[in-house]
Amino acid sequence: MPRLRIAAALAAVLAMPAFAQEPLQVREIGSLHVGGRVATIEGLPEREITFSPGSPPLRMNPNGDFQVEQMYAQYVKLANPRARYPLLLWHGGGLTGVTWETTPDGRPGWQMAFLRAGHDVWVSDAVERGRSGWARFPEVLAGEPVFRTMGEGWGLFRLGEQAGWNRDPARRVAYPDSRFPLAHWDQFMKQGVPRWVTTDRQIQAAYDAYVQAACPCVVMVHSQGGNFGFTAALTAPDKVKALIAIEPSGAPPQAAEAARLKDVPHLVVWGDHVAENAFWARIRQNIDRWQGQIRAAGGTADTLDLPAEGIRGNSHMLMMDTNSDEIAGRIQAWMAAKGLMR
Amino acid sequence: MPRLRIAAALAAVLAMPAFAQEPLQVREIGSLHVGGRVATIEGLPEREITFSPGSPPLRMNPNGDFQVEQMYAQYVKLANPRARYPLLLWHGGGLTGVTWETTPDGRPGWQMAFLRAGHDVWVSDAVERGRSGWARFPEVLAGEPVFRTMGEGWGLFRLGEQAGWNRDPARRVAYPDSRFPLAHWDQFMKQGVPRWVTTDRQIQAAYDAYVQAACPCVVMVHSQGGNFGFTAALTAPDKVKALIAIEPSGAPPQAAEAARLKDVPHLVVWGDHVAENAFWARIRQNIDRWQGQIRAAGGTADTLDLPAEGIRGNSHMLMMDTNSDEIAGRIQAWMAAKGLMR
Repeated sequence: MPRLRIAAALAAVLAMPAFAQEPLQVREIGSLHVGGRVATIEGLPEREITFSPGSPPLRMNPNGDFQVEQMYAQYVKLANPRARYPLLLWHGGGLTGVTWETTPDGRPGWQMAFLRAGHDVWVSDAVERGRSGWARFPEVLAGEPVFRTMGEGWGLFRLGEQAGWNRDPARRVAYPDSRFPLAHWDQFMKQGVPRWVTTDRQIQAAYDAYVQAACPCVVMVHSQGGNFGFTAALTAPDKVKALIAIEPSGAPPQAAEAARLKDVPHLVVWGDHVAENAFWARIRQNIDRWQGQIRAAGGTADTLDLPAEGIRGNSHMLMMDTNSDEIAGRIQAWMAAKGLMR
Repeated sequence: MPRLRIAAALAAVLAMPAFAQEPLQVREIGSLHVGGRVATIEGLPEREITFSPGSPPLRMNPNGDFQVEQMYAQYVKLANPRARYPLLLWHGGGLTGVTWETTPDGRPGWQMAFLRAGHDVWVSDAVERGRSGWARFPEVLAGEPVFRTMGEGWGLFRLGEQAGWNRDPARRVAYPDSRFPLAHWDQFMKQGVPRWVTTDRQIQAAYDAYVQAACPCVVMVHSQGGNFGFTAALTAPDKVKALIAIEPSGAPPQAAEAARLKDVPHLVVWGDHVAENAFWARIRQNIDRWQGQIRAAGGTADTLDLPAEGIRGNSHMLMMDTNSDEIAGRIQAWMAAKGLMR
């Protein structure tokens, strides 16, 4: 399996302007909503509601037409980007674009790292998450939302064994080599949002509309975003100039389709403790197969396996781990090597 | 009632560097969550859920500890701010910080306008809105959320009479002088999010924590944000160096308390068609009384009444109206006059 060579990657990190401290030259900051549709609700009773103290009550009719299933994205455009294409950052399940903006211990996130590296950076919230808004359920969104407990991610995000979770921070047991800023786990949990598990079709439709609005581009996905990114690339392989998947949690079920992505260079990044976690080991098998199909078709599907590079202890949230800047640097080196910088 | 003089304001607008087109010099972009608490849920049944296609099913226990009632804020810090304090932008009901980021027709929002004018700008989402996330109801958030129909805002936000609303865009009737980008109403509706009407206490607590984290500062509020801003200033009058209220929808019930804000300069901004709208006319009476108490105590409580200045047709969403830059310029001139710039 092709891997970045350590010496080359380190040289690139040291040479890159990504983490210089000069001010960013920013042309514009703004946002937009893409996609969505109008849904009509009928037959629900009227109610009278006082919206804020001191304001008179309003009679509310909950029926009518609603904008639903749209998606939010914010962009920061540089005056003189060094990257050939904007970089779109797609978050994982139960989270929002905040994933890319900060670390739980308050260091700059990858949004800032890749701005410094010369990319226009776009950060979005998936449909029914964050600033994309959500719609009445079950009338519009089928089923009901899922709320993540504070403990669930301890094992799922591979900070340690799930049995190491404890509601008392002093009694939580992590992997001894964990790079996650463990003392700030509760702060990380504040970034969580509810999510549905019935909305993949709507989320995908909005991502596809987003690609039409914002690309050509490079797409970087995390976790649940992986499947959406692979599928978006299949739908618009001319628009997605490269795909960087950070611990993707799934790929489209027909792995043979991946061959159609032979002209879209892929990089998949894995943290530590994957093989010893049955859930993630199985996911990685799926992704390895997906990448294998791309390579079999003559395409590029590289893997940055951090432990294999001697970098131990990274969690599923490696953009928040204490060595997040170093990992961003290695990804930046891959983009440079693939001709994605000017 | 004190008002800005037209000549002085126009001169300030023309002279200000706010809308120059040189790149912004940005030191850092990032975000954080403030406030909130841990809530415990018990006694709900387990479920098995498949999170994304291709990923194995997970057994979900919906009970446990949850982070709830936190608030999200994003900051853009300039390399060399000309303003003495960061500017915090607080949105209104049923919306998020997106209010400040863009206009529905895609022009730069006031976030960009005030960055160009030399302020570090912070944009937040109220508790249970946008990237602040929301919690299980009714177990954590009392009652149920309210969803805004596409038509409700037509009258409430004073684009026209409510009777002028029609689901067919071609048949909608606005005030003849409306400054809202009417053709983009449906796009504006995509910015909407559900909101509770039972969460004022939690929202206020998070805003108060936010003021402690991000201030001293200048706070600019819109609509439902008004009451939260006035109350936050009462709680921390030493931290809030000025308060700019854009069509605030309420003030604390004890107007006499406003006297405690005599050292916090206030500017209240009103668009058009307020007097002819019974709902807004009544709100304005409350706010006028609030301002009167501040002035009676020797403080500053100015009003920028746009129609009285000869600027007609502004809606409740005047940061999105076609003359939004001009209004931002007048507010900037007020801040400069109050000594809030270096």
